[in-house]
Amino acid sequence: MIRAAARAFRERGYHNTSLDDVAADLGVTKPIVYHYVGNKQQLLFECFRTGVDQIRSAFAELEGSRADGRTRLLAVMRRYAEAICSDFGWCMVRAEDQDLDPELSGRIKALKSEIDQGLRRLIREGIEDGSIRECDPKMTSFAIAGALNWIAHWHRGRDALSPSEIAARFIDVFENGLRPRNER
Amino acid sequence: MIRAAARAFRERGYHNTSLDDVAADLGVTKPIVYHYVGNKQQLLFECFRTGVDQIRSAFAELEGSRADGRTRLLAVMRRYAEAICSDFGWCMVRAEDQDLDPELSGRIKALKSEIDQGLRRLIREGIEDGSIRECDPKMTSFAIAGALNWIAHWHRGRDALSPSEIAARFIDVFENGLRPRNER
Repeated sequence: MIRAAARAFRERGYHNTSLDDVAADLGVTKPIVYHYVGNKQQLLFECFRTGVDQIRSAFAELEGSRADGRTRLLAVMRRYAEAICSDFGWCMVRAEDQDLDPELSGRIKALKSEIDQGLRRLIREGIEDGSIRECDPKMTSFAIAGALNWIAHWHRGRDALSPSEIAARFIDVFENGLRPRNER
Repeated sequence: MIRAAARAFRERGYHNTSLDDVAADLGVTKPIVYHYVGNKQQLLFECFRTGVDQIRSAFAELEGSRADGRTRLLAVMRRYAEAICSDFGWCMVRAEDQDLDPELSGRIKALKSEIDQGLRRLIREGIEDGSIRECDPKMTSFAIAGALNWIAHWHRGRDALSPSEIAARFIDVFENGLRPRNER
């Protein structure tokens, strides 16, 4: 149900999608949808959380890892890019712009902040262990998250590149930069 | 008038702002606003175009430049970042999501495509002249534009960093990458 809703929100827009539409897409009756989700705001929040949980899992799996900061950051970026390319990408990026009640809006902000703080922490750890060049962790986190979030604006399931190929090319840009490595 | 509208759209949202509000912000009568802009959609488009024209000027000024591709790309990125940090940033990034009539929507898409094609061309020229590492010009353009567009989501006039400092840090990430330059 959450996946069906995420697809409907992405394709028709949040305001143009009703719980009736989601029920129809699933071939179930309206009361079933209402039973599980309560209301449309809650459903949008669940779509957001399902997507963001993929990124949070990536962080969780790296707990206790002995890999250097850059390796862990790139692993999170890979999962982040794949999550944004998934059916949940639109909701991950756009949920906050909808008119949600303050409680849900606050939970979305808190989860976004958790991801941002996690990225900054990996960047700082990478700088400390020498695997990441000296840089501004906050601006670097914003640049990475912005580039990845923006994928939701142009990615369509029919793109020539698979999500893992998109992830690999974005990671290449951030890891290696535009300047040739052999240039002084 | 365009700047006042851009501020109002950013602060209150496009749907929550009327031409009456814009007139009130400017301390003029409604007929004056209607005389100059016709309708709210047209005003949003003018806000979009005013912002995007800053990026187009950067491209135009580089016509005939003998600088290498990377130098020209970074010059465009700097102006792009500064434009997104300006009052017009919100409209540059969000105009396309509003319910505009097909003619205006088409003009917005065409201008966005022009910027994207311009970035890709500079990337290709940089790869050819050796100033940019081998990379996928399309994905690299998307990564750069995404990171810069996303600034509109978090930037507030009261940020600790000035627009030119934000631009410089974003350019540093893209130019040099995360990996230390002295690493094999």
